[in-house]
Amino acid sequence: MSKILVVGSVAYDSVITKNAEASNILGGSATHFSVSASFFTDTSLVACVGRDFSRRDHEFLESRDIDLQGLQYLEGETFRWTGDYTENFNQAKTLDTQLNVLANFQPMIPKTHQNHRYVFLGNIDPKLQQSVISQVETPRIVAADTMNYWIESARESVLQVLRLVDVLLINDGEARQLAEETTLVAAAHKILSYGPSTLVVKLGEYGACLYQKTGDGLSVFGVPAYPLKKVCDPTGAGDTFAGGFMGYLAAMDRADLAAMRKAVVFGSVMASFNVEDFSLDRLRNLTFQEVCSRYHEFEKLTAFNPISPQDQFKSMTK
Amino acid sequence: MSKILVVGSVAYDSVITKNAEASNILGGSATHFSVSASFFTDTSLVACVGRDFSRRDHEFLESRDIDLQGLQYLEGETFRWTGDYTENFNQAKTLDTQLNVLANFQPMIPKTHQNHRYVFLGNIDPKLQQSVISQVETPRIVAADTMNYWIESARESVLQVLRLVDVLLINDGEARQLAEETTLVAAAHKILSYGPSTLVVKLGEYGACLYQKTGDGLSVFGVPAYPLKKVCDPTGAGDTFAGGFMGYLAAMDRADLAAMRKAVVFGSVMASFNVEDFSLDRLRNLTFQEVCSRYHEFEKLTAFNPISPQDQFKSMTK
Repeated sequence: MSKILVVGSVAYDSVITKNAEASNILGGSATHFSVSASFFTDTSLVACVGRDFSRRDHEFLESRDIDLQGLQYLEGETFRWTGDYTENFNQAKTLDTQLNVLANFQPMIPKTHQNHRYVFLGNIDPKLQQSVISQVETPRIVAADTMNYWIESARESVLQVLRLVDVLLINDGEARQLAEETTLVAAAHKILSYGPSTLVVKLGEYGACLYQKTGDGLSVFGVPAYPLKKVCDPTGAGDTFAGGFMGYLAAMDRADLAAMRKAVVFGSVMASFNVEDFSLDRLRNLTFQEVCSRYHEFEKLTAFNPISPQDQFKSMTK
Repeated sequence: MSKILVVGSVAYDSVITKNAEASNILGGSATHFSVSASFFTDTSLVACVGRDFSRRDHEFLESRDIDLQGLQYLEGETFRWTGDYTENFNQAKTLDTQLNVLANFQPMIPKTHQNHRYVFLGNIDPKLQQSVISQVETPRIVAADTMNYWIESARESVLQVLRLVDVLLINDGEARQLAEETTLVAAAHKILSYGPSTLVVKLGEYGACLYQKTGDGLSVFGVPAYPLKKVCDPTGAGDTFAGGFMGYLAAMDRADLAAMRKAVVFGSVMASFNVEDFSLDRLRNLTFQEVCSRYHEFEKLTAFNPISPQDQFKSMTK
């Protein structure tokens, strides 16, 4: 079982949906990722919070056995984000961002974390992502997220990160924007030419796709989303997905094609739980039995029979 | 092997895409459907064309062994449609529609077709769809398509059709619009309460979903789209999908859950070929060997391993 290092944000989110809203709830890419990954393996978090970060939230992360040595307490307030899903459940409209302590964040990787074999770079300034890569020793897999803001405002820096990572996990719109392509498959081909050997595209309600370079081209895997009748709050679904994805790979210390596919399913499982409640509340009482049981639901959701000798069609007889 | 009756449009399309364009090419819902279904079973087409419908196109349909007794030649020109995909490959912008003979179309089902066990109602006026249902004897499966235009302008009539059909095949946006729901799963629940026991939602680049009423709720199946690097022309993909879907069910004379899943994969296979060229040109030289081989590609595209005893995670040991 290998360890994971995650660097990203810890936040207090305010979220508005059609049916409900919640204010100042625990969020942030590193938070969602680490809580999700903590189901699978030992996880070390590097991030910063303000003096207002609550003791209760700190203790919750500790209760998940997440190593918080790298959690810096800085002068000022914790990063705050307000998002609105009333128009579109797949994509929040950002109403307000207060960087607060995140404006001065300089990731410092504690000595004991520098040899972690699995590294996840949450969605922060690509310059900081590069700084993290320069501080770690010889990781087996470095995975990164990014977002439209960085693709637009710091494209060259994002491309530099891509030359250094093994896996990029982004959403549909970001993939098209990054590659400047209209179809997803063409975008995947282009993004894999930028550096990563693996691309995971998160499609929200439509599931996820995995694209991997192989000797003779591209291996593609697709899985639908778990069919939830009611989604409460999609915030953090992508990071929770990444936590399940990297969590599985690190727990098994595997990065082959078959393991990556299972990792995508575990990512989908974890994300599907995350959206059932605000913040990461659903993961607070989630059992591993429930994780396995939903993994099995994904098998049933995607199963179909092969062509059999009983299948007789008109054009076979011609 | 049961027979299929399809009622819909035969058209001459003009299509503009980013990379190419084509004018006055053979199209229409009944055309795409029947050519696709003809790979699987005997198919009878009921539609109308104008005096300008070319001998060559008539002979092509005959060469597919499609029964054309129900193809009415009316005074006037064949239905024409012009669509533009330059902005969005998943959704055409209609530039021009000339109903021509379609404006006076009254489907008359020839006596010999009235006992066909599988019936597909292409996207035409829901009043005409109802008229077809009243002319057939005791079909095993009636499936229908519709579109935003009818949902907006003739909602009550669409709902009347839904009470009479077994399967509705529509796209994502139409499903949400018809159900007035934002999430696809909630939309599926509502649409199945309108009458059909099965709903197929076509997601374009994201694949397709199948929702079926079962004794204790809803059975859901999802399959990604075949990852084509280059899409030439998506026109008719939905009808070609429906042709593969109904073609498989009719060929096997089965409508159980497992058969429906295979039918969705055959639909996806046929649609993936259709978009590779303009009109239905790719299907002109398609072999059944290629159909089977791509079906097998879908198995590989969606395969992942179950949880195994080798999978050891942190939270298992707690």
